[in-house]
Amino acid sequence: MSRPLLIIGVAGGTGSGKSTVARNIVGALPVEQVSIIDHDSYYRDRSELSAEERAALNFDHPDSLDTELLIEQLRMLREGRTIEVPQYDFKTHARSKETRRITPTPIVVVEGILVFVEAALRALMDMKIFVDTDADIRVFRRIRRDIEHRGRTFQSIRDQYYKTVRPMHLMFVEPSKRWADIIIPEGGDNHVALDMIIGKLKHVLAESGKVTS
Amino acid sequence: MSRPLLIIGVAGGTGSGKSTVARNIVGALPVEQVSIIDHDSYYRDRSELSAEERAALNFDHPDSLDTELLIEQLRMLREGRTIEVPQYDFKTHARSKETRRITPTPIVVVEGILVFVEAALRALMDMKIFVDTDADIRVFRRIRRDIEHRGRTFQSIRDQYYKTVRPMHLMFVEPSKRWADIIIPEGGDNHVALDMIIGKLKHVLAESGKVTS
Repeated sequence: MSRPLLIIGVAGGTGSGKSTVARNIVGALPVEQVSIIDHDSYYRDRSELSAEERAALNFDHPDSLDTELLIEQLRMLREGRTIEVPQYDFKTHARSKETRRITPTPIVVVEGILVFVEAALRALMDMKIFVDTDADIRVFRRIRRDIEHRGRTFQSIRDQYYKTVRPMHLMFVEPSKRWADIIIPEGGDNHVALDMIIGKLKHVLAESGKVTS
Repeated sequence: MSRPLLIIGVAGGTGSGKSTVARNIVGALPVEQVSIIDHDSYYRDRSELSAEERAALNFDHPDSLDTELLIEQLRMLREGRTIEVPQYDFKTHARSKETRRITPTPIVVVEGILVFVEAALRALMDMKIFVDTDADIRVFRRIRRDIEHRGRTFQSIRDQYYKTVRPMHLMFVEPSKRWADIIIPEGGDNHVALDMIIGKLKHVLAESGKVTS
């Protein structure tokens, strides 16, 4: 039955380790008790733009995301309703025809660099976790990821970093840290913090009569 | 009987709310299961100095504290032995004849602005919590405390702040944040973070067969 569900926000800069934190939290809980929603899935459809126009888009600005839809869907989950999470295709900059169906679970993890920026989204979160990692480490991780997994050149990574990633980080991501309930240094390798968060969530599941192990 | 006990470090700048956090943690646990140790108790005896020399002391520098004794006593607690925590008299700058006897408890909270500075002390801690509050709020709290509770003038508070408090904060306290396992913004009013920490400690007590409520 639909119980009041707990929404956990996980934010942090690019390369901070926030996805690792989110995945570790999710992986430690029974699969049927937890869902993960990535803010990136809600990128606005830009398929009508030319390739040039798309290349000029600022994907690090809050306006690039359909956060209203995310908010609406989280409210639906709260009401016990199933949602269809959009899927974004980074190659065509369009929403896929496919969606990812999520049924209400006791724990919902919402992850993204900008999830603490909008007050209406923050207000839905029961626990706000900011993963805080030094900028030099974050940048090495991002460069490595973009070179090794996305086949990009160092030059294009650097251009994008100075043009949008860094200014948006300073303007939106870093200031949104002040909304956090807890700040986790170093991200996924921080076992003391992960242990504490996961312990809390298991306790909530146990209290609500769910099986936790 | 003496079990491996959990040492929780709570650090943060002056006025950060770290003492409130430490007290809230302690107050939420059964009184016989938890001890609190204040790093300030370990100020070195300066009774041999003249009043003038004492006035020139830098009480915000790690060297002003007998951290070796604190470390030794935490190790004694770990071994199941009772310790005699020194009491420092801020009026005479001397150690009192009285000590505070602490018997080993499952949870020991160690609190102070400088508790994360020395590696040997950090190494004894199972959980390191840094309470992070904006400098303007910290300063207002400190001024208020020193005026209302310590009868000091604004001028003397300001002089001390610029002379030792601020430089030592920047040199020792702020950099020690990087050793934290979790960072709590805002201190004692942060119920989500406190709830998580206390939940974890209650769980540890419950697991070890102690009564927790």
